[in-house]
Amino acid sequence: MTQTGRRSRIESFSNPLVKRMRLLREKRHRRAEGLFLAEGLRIATEARDAGVLPKWLFLAEEGAAHPLAQALVSATLASGGEVIDTTPAILSKLSGKENAQAIVAIYAEPKTLLTDLDRNTAPIWLVAERLRDPGNLGTMLRTGDAVGAGGLILLGESTDPYGVEAVRASMGAIFTQRLVQAEWDDFLPWLRGGPGQLVATWLGEDTVDYQAVRYAAPTFVLVGNESQGMPEAYAAAADMRVKMPMMGKADSLNAAVAAAVMAYEVLNQRRN
Amino acid sequence: MTQTGRRSRIESFSNPLVKRMRLLREKRHRRAEGLFLAEGLRIATEARDAGVLPKWLFLAEEGAAHPLAQALVSATLASGGEVIDTTPAILSKLSGKENAQAIVAIYAEPKTLLTDLDRNTAPIWLVAERLRDPGNLGTMLRTGDAVGAGGLILLGESTDPYGVEAVRASMGAIFTQRLVQAEWDDFLPWLRGGPGQLVATWLGEDTVDYQAVRYAAPTFVLVGNESQGMPEAYAAAADMRVKMPMMGKADSLNAAVAAAVMAYEVLNQRRN
Repeated sequence: MTQTGRRSRIESFSNPLVKRMRLLREKRHRRAEGLFLAEGLRIATEARDAGVLPKWLFLAEEGAAHPLAQALVSATLASGGEVIDTTPAILSKLSGKENAQAIVAIYAEPKTLLTDLDRNTAPIWLVAERLRDPGNLGTMLRTGDAVGAGGLILLGESTDPYGVEAVRASMGAIFTQRLVQAEWDDFLPWLRGGPGQLVATWLGEDTVDYQAVRYAAPTFVLVGNESQGMPEAYAAAADMRVKMPMMGKADSLNAAVAAAVMAYEVLNQRRN
Repeated sequence: MTQTGRRSRIESFSNPLVKRMRLLREKRHRRAEGLFLAEGLRIATEARDAGVLPKWLFLAEEGAAHPLAQALVSATLASGGEVIDTTPAILSKLSGKENAQAIVAIYAEPKTLLTDLDRNTAPIWLVAERLRDPGNLGTMLRTGDAVGAGGLILLGESTDPYGVEAVRASMGAIFTQRLVQAEWDDFLPWLRGGPGQLVATWLGEDTVDYQAVRYAAPTFVLVGNESQGMPEAYAAAADMRVKMPMMGKADSLNAAVAAAVMAYEVLNQRRN
């Protein structure tokens, strides 16, 4: 039987649901609620395509007319979610931006554990250690989707993957890539409990050129913190330490760029 | 004969130079002054290594003790620049950040024209059209440095490459890569006035796999606007329209990632 959600109208800034949802821009409220916020018809449609529907869908009149928005409204209601017709001003208040998108959607945050992952479902997995920049995090998810990765494993204290900026930079991949937050001390035993090659992009000694090795599936591509790189012990525990050629003055690439250049090499070896 | 600059001390927020320099965080003031601001000892040292010294170097006592800071002070004075000993609070005011770096340096903005470039000095040049995100812009400069590119050509109305965020993301490559802002209508005749292959990363029809073609130097790698891609006419005017494999739901990569994956392919073909 199809669940049926509610459709209502909110025009007051002091509405309790509006007050509650706008707090989702802050990490501690996202944590407490287990919810996160995504803006825009495009990303909400990507989510729907991936089978993920919002618990609350806020939309303004102009946005509601779009056929994709209508499909989203129907699907949200059918899944038991709540659709709220509202004003552009309230959408701006929710998103914290002056020119808000015509849709703001609130999703349950999936809690995925390492033990939930089936590593054999994808030939590539991205692993990032203490990632600090939400744009980099979202970009890695987007790259992961592009290369056919299974997901992104975040080690240590990273920026919140469910923050608005990371979600936006993911361009919908937050809904298609698995996302796990774990500690190194749990990750390494899990990794060694099954097949898989851990490849560290390493700036130190004892590296090989990233094109001089053959990658075996599943390949776990590990990149370190943006300013400090990764601890030496992590690189030492990896099956390979690889380096991209650096022809100029800089000694490293942006973390999301390094992950992408590596991931495309892994993909290219497999498809060629 | 060595020019000798001045060294002075400023501790007042209302000092006219402080007031003037903090305005450099705004694009119109950067334009009017022909100056831009970079933060941190690391980036200022990269600049010095590239032969670029600041017109004004602001530093706090704790930062001044570092041997690299002392070298920077000497070089700045020797080049006729002004060194200003100041307080952490004034550095924060200049940089607009609560925890400012111990050094803020003010540089003259180079005005490089297409006709100033010698395309044969490098095998790769990056070209970006209406780039909107300063992080992407800075990251492209950083990638350009890494792959041995000559520089970045910005077409149309882009985000300001001399804004604080772009300068920071470049990690010093703003001082090692040539940077030109031009219009397509000037770029295309300039390009066709010499050797060079224009390669567009294109999401539309009539593309080839980016690994299926051989790139010839100098290769100009063109990426389009983050949300709209590039105009069809630009892709049509290119010598090649290439596409990276996209295995997932997303139809495109982040612009800086696309530029990097392409640039490493061009580099790899040349070094293999």
